[in-house]
Amino acid sequence: MLNPCDAAFAETLSARLPEGCLRAVEPRYVTEPRGRHTGIGGVVALPRSVAEVSEIVRACAEGRVGIVPFGGGTGLVGGQVMEAGPLPLILSLERMAAVRSVFPAENVLVVEAGATLAEVQEAALAAGRMFPLALASQGTARIGGNLATNAGGVNVLRYGNIRDLCLGVEAVLPDGSVLNGLKRLRKDNSGYDLRHLLIGSEGTLGVITAAALRMVPRPAGVGTAMLVVESPAAALALLAMAEERLAGCVSAFELISRQGLLFLDEVMPEVRQPFVDRPAWMVLIELGLPRGLDPQEALEELFVAASEAGLVSDGVIAQSAGQQAELWRLRESLPDANRKIGAVSSHDISVPLSEIPGFISAAEAALAGIGSFRINCFGHVGDGNLHFNLFPLPGQTRADHDNQREAIKTCVHDIAHGLGGSVSAEHGVGRLKTGDMERYGDPAKLAVLRSLKAAIDPLGIMNPGALLAEQA
Amino acid sequence: MLNPCDAAFAETLSARLPEGCLRAVEPRYVTEPRGRHTGIGGVVALPRSVAEVSEIVRACAEGRVGIVPFGGGTGLVGGQVMEAGPLPLILSLERMAAVRSVFPAENVLVVEAGATLAEVQEAALAAGRMFPLALASQGTARIGGNLATNAGGVNVLRYGNIRDLCLGVEAVLPDGSVLNGLKRLRKDNSGYDLRHLLIGSEGTLGVITAAALRMVPRPAGVGTAMLVVESPAAALALLAMAEERLAGCVSAFELISRQGLLFLDEVMPEVRQPFVDRPAWMVLIELGLPRGLDPQEALEELFVAASEAGLVSDGVIAQSAGQQAELWRLRESLPDANRKIGAVSSHDISVPLSEIPGFISAAEAALAGIGSFRINCFGHVGDGNLHFNLFPLPGQTRADHDNQREAIKTCVHDIAHGLGGSVSAEHGVGRLKTGDMERYGDPAKLAVLRSLKAAIDPLGIMNPGALLAEQA
Repeated sequence: MLNPCDAAFAETLSARLPEGCLRAVEPRYVTEPRGRHTGIGGVVALPRSVAEVSEIVRACAEGRVGIVPFGGGTGLVGGQVMEAGPLPLILSLERMAAVRSVFPAENVLVVEAGATLAEVQEAALAAGRMFPLALASQGTARIGGNLATNAGGVNVLRYGNIRDLCLGVEAVLPDGSVLNGLKRLRKDNSGYDLRHLLIGSEGTLGVITAAALRMVPRPAGVGTAMLVVESPAAALALLAMAEERLAGCVSAFELISRQGLLFLDEVMPEVRQPFVDRPAWMVLIELGLPRGLDPQEALEELFVAASEAGLVSDGVIAQSAGQQAELWRLRESLPDANRKIGAVSSHDISVPLSEIPGFISAAEAALAGIGSFRINCFGHVGDGNLHFNLFPLPGQTRADHDNQREAIKTCVHDIAHGLGGSVSAEHGVGRLKTGDMERYGDPAKLAVLRSLKAAIDPLGIMNPGALLAEQA
Repeated sequence: MLNPCDAAFAETLSARLPEGCLRAVEPRYVTEPRGRHTGIGGVVALPRSVAEVSEIVRACAEGRVGIVPFGGGTGLVGGQVMEAGPLPLILSLERMAAVRSVFPAENVLVVEAGATLAEVQEAALAAGRMFPLALASQGTARIGGNLATNAGGVNVLRYGNIRDLCLGVEAVLPDGSVLNGLKRLRKDNSGYDLRHLLIGSEGTLGVITAAALRMVPRPAGVGTAMLVVESPAAALALLAMAEERLAGCVSAFELISRQGLLFLDEVMPEVRQPFVDRPAWMVLIELGLPRGLDPQEALEELFVAASEAGLVSDGVIAQSAGQQAELWRLRESLPDANRKIGAVSSHDISVPLSEIPGFISAAEAALAGIGSFRINCFGHVGDGNLHFNLFPLPGQTRADHDNQREAIKTCVHDIAHGLGGSVSAEHGVGRLKTGDMERYGDPAKLAVLRSLKAAIDPLGIMNPGALLAEQA
């Protein structure tokens, strides 16, 4: 039904735009971090303004040419990489990267979609505030992509996903019209919330070109500790204790398993580890506190209380910014180590908090029936979000398990779903998980999703094949 | 296009439901708090389960009968009161009021739509947690209505609107299908966020029957103070100072004007006031703090710092729970006093925080060109949300200004809109402000709103005439 973005279309489009807006595809637009998906190519458009985005989308609508919006290319589910179908136009927002304005007194900044997350964080810091979204890929990931995928990361526990940090969006809709929604308001109940509809829609309903984002005050004191816990259940009890004592001032709470530490020993021995005996489980906890509280003292008191309750057995509390960075470096090195080891299958699941221990034990037991693996289970346990990744035993390779991958994925996803969880917690659906949407989606939900897509993008030009499987 | 809910339809519907599900209309279903709207009547359905709601909606879809969802009836914009058109079915959720389950370890509770906000708060307290949404009408307002209108209130500054406190919804869609979306997940990126589409849709896209709601930890210490500020600008500077010192632990920050205090003197002299000379402006500030910080001390230190910066000139810090309640009683009495005085025109606007002083002065100046009024400007200044209400001068009545009302409303709304604000900050659109939607709505937004409504409710049976003006 769609037409390819061929030379004739590119020529027509080029004539409607200022010079230099189109370029031939380069490898970075058609590959992705894990090397699992490869795009079929297309032409790349590089608009400099919302007017140019509008013109491009209008032309694509007229020509019935598919559009793949492209941010930093860091997505892990193939949302930015179209592998089949008529050649698309790849719409990169990289030239729209301005911080349009900063309102420190309002705790708001307005940025264009092509700004990297790190640039947004820096703009907030320069204004004496903080933009709390934090991800491993923040140097490369662009804020438009973060919004399109409703990015999560390590501070969701306290500050929410990016949808909770977004006050308004400017977007180009599939007919080329511009949605002027850059409101800087905390309260605005005037009609259906299109901001929340576009956020997380993975480019299938329109292209976000700019956003008004919330900043938050910088905590007066920040404390970081790595605490050894006996089990994921103990980690959750520790979290509840911390939140109760600290009125919600727990900024991050990350679970780390022994397997992750052993992977670091194996492939990144330069990463310093706080415990000589690699513990079965530990948590990285960070507090962001009001003036008048000493973060180290608060963590020491928490440690004492948690020890008395039998929740923690050992721990280190960072005594300097350098030590804090070192603890975070360990956490942030886990995905790198995983990549070096080479996963058989990676999962980004969430379950209700109280189901976490049950999920882990059920998944381990069920997977033992499929094969033998090294499992690195880690992640944002305070959000119920685990990265539950399987690796070959030493001496084996990823390829040795190629014929088990589908069974593994189905096994893990069935268990998460059965516990009321999600098989796509923070990475999105992309093109990798459209089948999961059909398998696990509530029928009424799927029907509404399709009717929304048909209503807003009747030609189906926006990111074809992402989020929703194309119907036969 | 719709058919009336006449005796024949009621009989058909009754036959499909258990006994006692329908009743004749009573006054409470067709009136509203300010007495401005009167419903045309209809038949009232009182389902006990989501299956019964589904059956009712299905029957209405088959019969093309309009449905007005009804919660606590506390809405201020006529969303729950249909004044014209074919008689509707009034669908009251009052019998679906169960707290279905509480998960203290997850900070989650699942409640049915008919539970009052106060009942939800109590269930959270009983679990050792807190449900932070707080409104003047919380004893009567039902959580389904709170969700349908994305209720705000006094704790939005810290905890967000109710959409930020909702993890998932169960809803009956306009075709009678049931959306099973009661997920208890912090992270779930699997398709367009229907929860956020239904929240704030004012019953025009479906009927929310239950919700999974977030609880938050109870702060270890709560401090409350009333501080005298010179101006709204000084109030905002004080807020910024408080947030910076306290890492976001400011739970409420309410602006109160002298006019409000004089109204209390006039019609509610029993309300104790902390300052003999009624100050031009003051703020009620509440802190919810971690363990280890003394709330009174934190407020004293803030007061000293703010005094040194010239931001506050006087203040009282509550020394007991009784004194805290007294300060809150003053704030909560303002709407009652307003009602006793009798407003000429009430407005629920929001503007970007830094535009608040400009909004107030511009609105006062412009209104002086229309007539002479007493203006009570108060509200959730930390959210940029002001209730800017006009009252007759002493000796005059509301009726004296009847011919000015439209001009007043347009004047205030034009100014708010011109500053990038909203004319419906927290109360919603209802039937009162559909004209404002057309006047101030972004054209692309309005087009999408209509296409969403047509896609999800093609027969137009859900709360006809609310939120979107019916097209000729």
